[in-house]
Amino acid sequence: MATIDFWYSIGSTYSYLTVKRLPSVAQAAGITFRWRPFNVRHVMVAQNNIPFKDKPEKTAHMWRDIERRAARYGLNPSIPAPYPLPGLVLANQVAILGAEEGWGEAYTRATYSRWFEAGHPAGEEPNLSGSLIEIGQDPLRVLEAARSARVVEALSIATREAMEIGVFGSPTFVVDGELFWGDDRLQDAIDWSRAGKLA
Amino acid sequence: MATIDFWYSIGSTYSYLTVKRLPSVAQAAGITFRWRPFNVRHVMVAQNNIPFKDKPEKTAHMWRDIERRAARYGLNPSIPAPYPLPGLVLANQVAILGAEEGWGEAYTRATYSRWFEAGHPAGEEPNLSGSLIEIGQDPLRVLEAARSARVVEALSIATREAMEIGVFGSPTFVVDGELFWGDDRLQDAIDWSRAGKLA
Repeated sequence: MATIDFWYSIGSTYSYLTVKRLPSVAQAAGITFRWRPFNVRHVMVAQNNIPFKDKPEKTAHMWRDIERRAARYGLNPSIPAPYPLPGLVLANQVAILGAEEGWGEAYTRATYSRWFEAGHPAGEEPNLSGSLIEIGQDPLRVLEAARSARVVEALSIATREAMEIGVFGSPTFVVDGELFWGDDRLQDAIDWSRAGKLA
Repeated sequence: MATIDFWYSIGSTYSYLTVKRLPSVAQAAGITFRWRPFNVRHVMVAQNNIPFKDKPEKTAHMWRDIERRAARYGLNPSIPAPYPLPGLVLANQVAILGAEEGWGEAYTRATYSRWFEAGHPAGEEPNLSGSLIEIGQDPLRVLEAARSARVVEALSIATREAMEIGVFGSPTFVVDGELFWGDDRLQDAIDWSRAGKLA
């Protein structure tokens, strides 16, 4: 079965669409997606690529665009969600621990639902503990481990790997060395994995 | 027949895809597109929205993304095209004169073909005169008129109108007060014009 790397940061707005629709898309396409959390804020600051700050027109379009596209996918977010996320780094430290332990995808989906649908920012309480309890994880254990030097370093390593292969934003799909940036490029990435070109 | 406003600037890279495929898309959809040139550089500088300058990773993805998508549409550009365009403003002064006189769409397509397929930057020679002769216009007359105070002002007025309705990039499709930014949102705009939602 083909595998596509799905690089993402909790904190990215458009990644909401991908996180929520990816299970059904993956099943329909018969493709495995490898969920790869990284720190997109670190990458964007390093590359001076600040997409929305102090850009009200572009930001307004982003929210409306997500709202329109969410409806297409049967999603019902409360727009705009709180943004940006003060807890972005911790949110992704938890995600990378979850990726190691096998519950990263479930946590990511739970935390995005609480952020975009209930209005509770990811990476802080009550979202963190609520999401972890919902997926059967102990918040005390997970949050202590997620703050450990080892997990902090694991997120840094993943972020360096992302930058080395050219990832500059979230979500990014990587297949056969080709980068596809944006939820709106998910189908292009699937096309590429099947035929080496867009259908 | 439904009408969608197609706001664009010659100088935008992704607009190449739209300019080249719009005739067949419009015919298939039964929709009229009103071609509206404006000065996207003025808008981006005013809004501190500089998408590619000093961003090599994002720029590399942009060219590869255009190349992959061009192939999907049966186009064969020479990537990367010369960028940015020193003659952006004059290129769009000619376009707005052409829009008044009925040859704006033909000129825009001709100048994009020479820019992206032959590697001759739009808004300067030999692209300007070659494109105008190709579509049956007299370069001497057109270039003198395009540089006149009246046409300079016409482009400014169009650019102000674009900004007033929230346009921040090219291409942008506007239908029933909804903005859709990007060649990749063309189908969303068509969906909206038909049903007030995305299909």
